[in-house]
Amino acid sequence: MTYQLHYWPTIQGRGEFVRLALEEAGAAYVDVARGDGDDGGEEALMADMAAQDHPPFAPPYLVDGDLVIGQTANILLHLGLRHGLAPKAEAGRLWVNQLQLTIADLVAEAHDVHHPVGMGLYYEDQKPEAARRAREFRTQRMKKFLGWFETVLERAPKGGWLTGEDLTYADLSLFQAVEGLRYAFPHAMKRLEPRIGRVIAVRDRVEARPNIKAYLASPRRIPFSTEGIFRLYPELDPV
Amino acid sequence: MTYQLHYWPTIQGRGEFVRLALEEAGAAYVDVARGDGDDGGEEALMADMAAQDHPPFAPPYLVDGDLVIGQTANILLHLGLRHGLAPKAEAGRLWVNQLQLTIADLVAEAHDVHHPVGMGLYYEDQKPEAARRAREFRTQRMKKFLGWFETVLERAPKGGWLTGEDLTYADLSLFQAVEGLRYAFPHAMKRLEPRIGRVIAVRDRVEARPNIKAYLASPRRIPFSTEGIFRLYPELDPV
Repeated sequence: MTYQLHYWPTIQGRGEFVRLALEEAGAAYVDVARGDGDDGGEEALMADMAAQDHPPFAPPYLVDGDLVIGQTANILLHLGLRHGLAPKAEAGRLWVNQLQLTIADLVAEAHDVHHPVGMGLYYEDQKPEAARRAREFRTQRMKKFLGWFETVLERAPKGGWLTGEDLTYADLSLFQAVEGLRYAFPHAMKRLEPRIGRVIAVRDRVEARPNIKAYLASPRRIPFSTEGIFRLYPELDPV
Repeated sequence: MTYQLHYWPTIQGRGEFVRLALEEAGAAYVDVARGDGDDGGEEALMADMAAQDHPPFAPPYLVDGDLVIGQTANILLHLGLRHGLAPKAEAGRLWVNQLQLTIADLVAEAHDVHHPVGMGLYYEDQKPEAARRAREFRTQRMKKFLGWFETVLERAPKGGWLTGEDLTYADLSLFQAVEGLRYAFPHAMKRLEPRIGRVIAVRDRVEARPNIKAYLASPRRIPFSTEGIFRLYPELDPV
């Protein structure tokens, strides 16, 4: 069975968390809006989304047979169970979902740095506000989020992953969060990384997974850009 | 078994979505930080949270025997299953989780209206930025979110709830979202409500549930205030 992933075709964005899970699992999937056919492109994406009986509020959404699943963390909850990327027992599944939802909060804040007062406006229309928000994000929020993941890893059972011995989709997502923050806030990350060694070790181990390594080297991995969620605007990340 | 809910003692906030589910279910729970004992108060809350093996990133969190569950939507996923507030089948459970996560996005945006550039700052330190963000929220985002729930209800099977015949925790959360928006943006809601009749009908039916009715009339229901997530600042909601 081939999954259909529906997401904006030109950015990593929230869809990337789903792509990483599908790639690690070696699952067959089509990234529909990136295709050349009638289903490709943003217009077809919006039309398909609006026509669903269970219309997602926004991309990404995943079609798995009869299921149409929206919200990134919800898609991962489903894929985690299907592909052994989350514990089978309830307690572990809830904990991994909790980790993922906390990454979702971090991602939303990383987005709001460049869109603090209007998501319908351009960054260029809210630069002074973005500068204020970026200051707090760089000096407090990034530390708080990544410091929290460091604590989680400190207290985890041995094994080096967020839940101990087994990789979960939350580890893949933490990799993506670190990559996004490194792209958007290289100077702030350089200062922070010495204090989050366990987080960086998870990032490195994810990068070394064979399926992930192949994916990152493939054209399927879209580069970071100032169209995505994590954006490099040098004025928001002073030396 | 008595649940322990851990949340800020003086506001509805995100904890209120959990309180509503517990109250509708008639579940025994202690709202720990609201107690008079050593466990009460914000300092004890923060200390308890930081000491957990699975430390939540922020309140609310729920203790259910050995389980310590953080992130509002994650707590509700657990309670929904336990108390018949979500479908048993996987497809239904994922859909209700998706609805809840979309409410979580709305709630985060409602918060950011009064804290667009610094969550560590006071509203008074970011009033011009808040005015800009509030304009978009009032004229576009509220419509988009509540209009989406109206569409979901239009396409739902008969029964009047978000998933058709049976109340789920997402209906309780939609009630709370409407109440919060009515408090914070009374003028904008007055303009919007004629176009979201199905959403308002869900709100009314939730309010009429015997357990919810009793709860809302009790001192357990904390009033809305300008300390919470939904805040009434008249300058952000002009006539």
